Amino acid sequence: MNIAFIGLGNMGLPMSANLLRAGHAVSGYDPVAARVAEFVAAGGKAAQSAAQAVQGAQLVITMLPASQHVRDIYLGDGGLLSQVDAQALLIDCSTIAPQAAREVAEAASAKGFAMIDAPVSGGTGGAVAGTLTFMVGGAAEHLERARAVLSAMGSNIFHAGPSGAGQAAKVCNNMLAGIAMIATSEALRLGLANGLDPKVLSSIISKSSGGNWVVDKYNPCPGTMDNVPSARGYTGGFAVDLMLKDLGLAVENALDMKAAVPLGALARNLYDLHSKSGNGSLDSSSIFNMFAPKS
Amino acid sequence: MNIAFIGLGNMGLPMSANLLRAGHAVSGYDPVAARVAEFVAAGGKAAQSAAQAVQGAQLVITMLPASQHVRDIYLGDGGLLSQVDAQALLIDCSTIAPQAAREVAEAASAKGFAMIDAPVSGGTGGAVAGTLTFMVGGAAEHLERARAVLSAMGSNIFHAGPSGAGQAAKVCNNMLAGIAMIATSEALRLGLANGLDPKVLSSIISKSSGGNWVVDKYNPCPGTMDNVPSARGYTGGFAVDLMLKDLGLAVENALDMKAAVPLGALARNLYDLHSKSGNGSLDSSSIFNMFAPKS
Amino acid sequence: MNIAFIGLGNMGLPMSANLLRAGHAVSGYDPVAARVAEFVAAGGKAAQSAAQAVQGAQLVITMLPASQHVRDIYLGDGGLLSQVDAQALLIDCSTIAPQAAREVAEAASAKGFAMIDAPVSGGTGGAVAGTLTFMVGGAAEHLERARAVLSAMGSNIFHAGPSGAGQAAKVCNNMLAGIAMIATSEALRLGLANGLDPKVLSSIISKSSGGNWVVDKYNPCPGTMDNVPSARGYTGGFAVDLMLKDLGLAVENALDMKAAVPLGALARNLYDLHSKSGNGSLDSSSIFNMFAPKS
Amino acid sequence: MNIAFIGLGNMGLPMSANLLRAGHAVSGYDPVAARVAEFVAAGGKAAQSAAQAVQGAQLVITMLPASQHVRDIYLGDGGLLSQVDAQALLIDCSTIAPQAAREVAEAASAKGFAMIDAPVSGGTGGAVAGTLTFMVGGAAEHLERARAVLSAMGSNIFHAGPSGAGQAAKVCNNMLAGIAMIATSEALRLGLANGLDPKVLSSIISKSSGGNWVVDKYNPCPGTMDNVPSARGYTGGFAVDLMLKDLGLAVENALDMKAAVPLGALARNLYDLHSKSGNGSLDSSSIFNMFAPKS
Repeated sequence: MNIAFIGLGNMGLPMSANLLRAGHAVSGYDPVAARVAEFVAAGGKAAQSAAQAVQGAQLVITMLPASQHVRDIYLGDGGLLSQVDAQALLIDCSTIAPQAAREVAEAASAKGFAMIDAPVSGGTGGAVAGTLTFMVGGAAEHLERARAVLSAMGSNIFHAGPSGAGQAAKVCNNMLAGIAMIATSEALRLGLANGLDPKVLSSIISKSSGGNWVVDKYNPCPGTMDNVPSARGYTGGFAVDLMLKDLGLAVENALDMKAAVPLGALARNLYDLHSKSGNGSLDSSSIFNMFAPKS
Repeated sequence: MNIAFIGLGNMGLPMSANLLRAGHAVSGYDPVAARVAEFVAAGGKAAQSAAQAVQGAQLVITMLPASQHVRDIYLGDGGLLSQVDAQALLIDCSTIAPQAAREVAEAASAKGFAMIDAPVSGGTGGAVAGTLTFMVGGAAEHLERARAVLSAMGSNIFHAGPSGAGQAAKVCNNMLAGIAMIATSEALRLGLANGLDPKVLSSIISKSSGGNWVVDKYNPCPGTMDNVPSARGYTGGFAVDLMLKDLGLAVENALDMKAAVPLGALARNLYDLHSKSGNGSLDSSSIFNMFAPKS
Repeated sequence: MNIAFIGLGNMGLPMSANLLRAGHAVSGYDPVAARVAEFVAAGGKAAQSAAQAVQGAQLVITMLPASQHVRDIYLGDGGLLSQVDAQALLIDCSTIAPQAAREVAEAASAKGFAMIDAPVSGGTGGAVAGTLTFMVGGAAEHLERARAVLSAMGSNIFHAGPSGAGQAAKVCNNMLAGIAMIATSEALRLGLANGLDPKVLSSIISKSSGGNWVVDKYNPCPGTMDNVPSARGYTGGFAVDLMLKDLGLAVENALDMKAAVPLGALARNLYDLHSKSGNGSLDSSSIFNMFAPKS
Repeated sequence: MNIAFIGLGNMGLPMSANLLRAGHAVSGYDPVAARVAEFVAAGGKAAQSAAQAVQGAQLVITMLPASQHVRDIYLGDGGLLSQVDAQALLIDCSTIAPQAAREVAEAASAKGFAMIDAPVSGGTGGAVAGTLTFMVGGAAEHLERARAVLSAMGSNIFHAGPSGAGQAAKVCNNMLAGIAMIATSEALRLGLANGLDPKVLSSIISKSSGGNWVVDKYNPCPGTMDNVPSARGYTGGFAVDLMLKDLGLAVENALDMKAAVPLGALARNLYDLHSKSGNGSLDSSSIFNMFAPKS
């Protein structure tokens, strides 16, 4: 299939590489020339602009940093909605505000385009391994058209609902994950203060009503688990500043939807304070350190 | 074995019944006569006082409402520590402050008694079915002496560490569970506000980084799950006021240990506000209603 | 002076009436015809559109509900920036996001217009009495041009800084006021639970380190003060939903500015929960009821 | 008057010196010998124990670190209640839990003693200058008996209510002060992020609905005010760890009274995190630094 891939960053580059590996013809664009060069080295075809990349594409994928970039590239004069072929399927894999996703999808629909939002989780590791999770918003038949291509990049595909629902599902899930990371840190630190072995406590929690993905798969306390960021000085993984971005999207969405998220909002503020202390590029599980007793 | 059981309330009564069913001779006491009558009907032997109940007992179990009751019954003039046989094993199954458990265990140890703290989870349903979880603090050999008896009342026994560690593990776990109940409610409400189907969203979260025991086993949103309190008007289950008690123990313990629990403390206050609105006897998952949009 | 006044709502109508009373010629517009009729009855000149209202105006005042309305009326095709006289001074009295105020002021400046943001506090009472407080952002000389007109509507004029600073000052102040309302409610309720007389406690706090505007001028506890909403069933005053809007602006601004506002965000969420319980149109001091003990 | 003074620490020493200066005969005790030596140098009479200090005293003042010390020194075998003269008036100036104050006062009353709780605010500066504020709990006639002596040490005396009310008033006031310190820091940081001059913003807030004692008398932002801790590197003043103690008393009291204090509890946790970062001995206004943007 002829695919256009816009945004060849830490996520977009390995994702597009998996499409190339699966035999697709991919035309790519990124404003950073070095990124495009890497993409060409992987077998991709360089485009000089987003508009050029989408010429002749049957399927367009965008993977951009924030809501505004997605709005800018699709809407307005010279935006993708005035460039792509009438039959092309549009897939935005960026993580953006649900309301922005709905806005862009409505504009696309108004011009007759099929579009889905398909934000991912799984990080750069999942992008390289092709094991990403896609949370998809849009019509079921559009998701079916996209399924084979998404499967070349990920191993789990959830249909969350209509346009914007993929973003909303990701926002809800990641808000929960952020809260759980802090809550698990509080609980393990409280256990340590009481003299408990965090490995023993984690195993108890894991099988009890406090059980959650963090304690099972991403324990923030060093020494409890191998092959997670806490076992290697909080390097790798999912950075504090990315968690902060996702929690910010949750709070922004709650404002838009007039929803109350007291724990979600507090989690965002605690991550913000943690980032302000200079930990923005550490893994998000480093928030465990915020609760360390005075040495 | 000759067992004394002090405290025949909603939990103690079915727990002692399971001991009787397992063939133990149980002498029981409760200040409420009707409770003792039920216990006798189940085959127990009534005692007129706690002191009388423990005469000749090889094993003493206490199941009381709060720290002060446990302190009062064991310590001081005429307390159990001056009544029980020298060889008796003491098991406190009450849910109390870890520091109170340590205090009582130290006093017991100073008089030469073996004692463990063994708070339970699983609620009245688990007490009746004999499927409680015990989180045990104390020496491993004391736990081994108690294991057969505990097994008659529960299906999971965790050794959390030295004296008080059972209480501390429960405090940590239940704080996490309380936070997760509210956080999951926030996330599902935010999803609903975005037009998502809560059943679909729950299934996505369940397999993603936001996954937790609440969304898997105790979903607070009506219509997502059968046989849970949210499916029957938030009746049955684990009451708001019990959750409030457990979160209060977590906050109290954090004050004692000089630990920070910002999310745990906020969770306690939100449950307190929910209780103040008249929901104290509903199931704890009813906090989902606190986040309902204006009708 | 020839003045155009756009937005004749609960605030705009009495504000424009004070301008008329001061002898200005005011041309007014509001999409609600009944509002325009009241304005005409007060001596104003009705316009059929915002564009018509500003014809020949030396000074344009807008008083609109939210950021989007201000963006819409000034910017874009047919917006006020393409309608007003080159020499006119533009004054936006709406309470909107500081970033929106900066955006509109920059667009105005790019077209050569003088513009200030001048949000008010003091409520409808202050609007009627002409005792509003203006927090002004923009060049000092533009504020001087506006001073006489603002003085006809208010008794305090603060110059907060450059464009957007009026909005930012209001956001910061009102976030503090919202936190203080809840914090004072918590403190007085805690005092009541300890058996204190809230009037005595208020008088002590007022002269101590906990002293604040709420306890001095707007006590939320009935019986402590006359002529405040708590003395008349929480009617009149500044509605819960307006406080919620202002706290929402603070949280939104904090997201934009990458600032941490843990107390501000929690205050917003508590007001949101209070509004969801059906109290949105009561005075904001009714949050005192949220902390009432179970009856 | 013959006065016994127990507890000659940073507060007790200058307070007792003011009593000596006013012409009273003061017998003092402290477990730290160096403290007693300073007291003797100021004209006091050394006692070898608390019991010895109170012999012949008409008035007994205690100034101790925490609830447990006050319980220990008054109650139990050999406690002051079995040592002091029947006519002596007992004044506890320590800052302790209201429930502990009530407990000790009840025990005193049961033995026929007159007792008041009279915690102070004003810090070591106020203790030296004799300008402390006393918040008094107990019978009005007992306060009148104490008034002249208290006036030798302080300039404001509030009668808060019956026994324990002095402690409760202090807890409520200081919880508000702690919240206001953080809230004001959030607001000023948000203003700074928007480009506002913090001095201008402070002056606006001071005259508006966000006005409070912190912004008026104890501004946490360096450069806004002279002669406050923020003007001298957050030295002097009221230490973070003392604020943390007071907020801990508020949270403990709320647990005891079944009150909700969501902002108070969050304030405690934020101060706890600030202390854990190594700022425990800085002035409490240093929490302003917690909100500093990344450098």
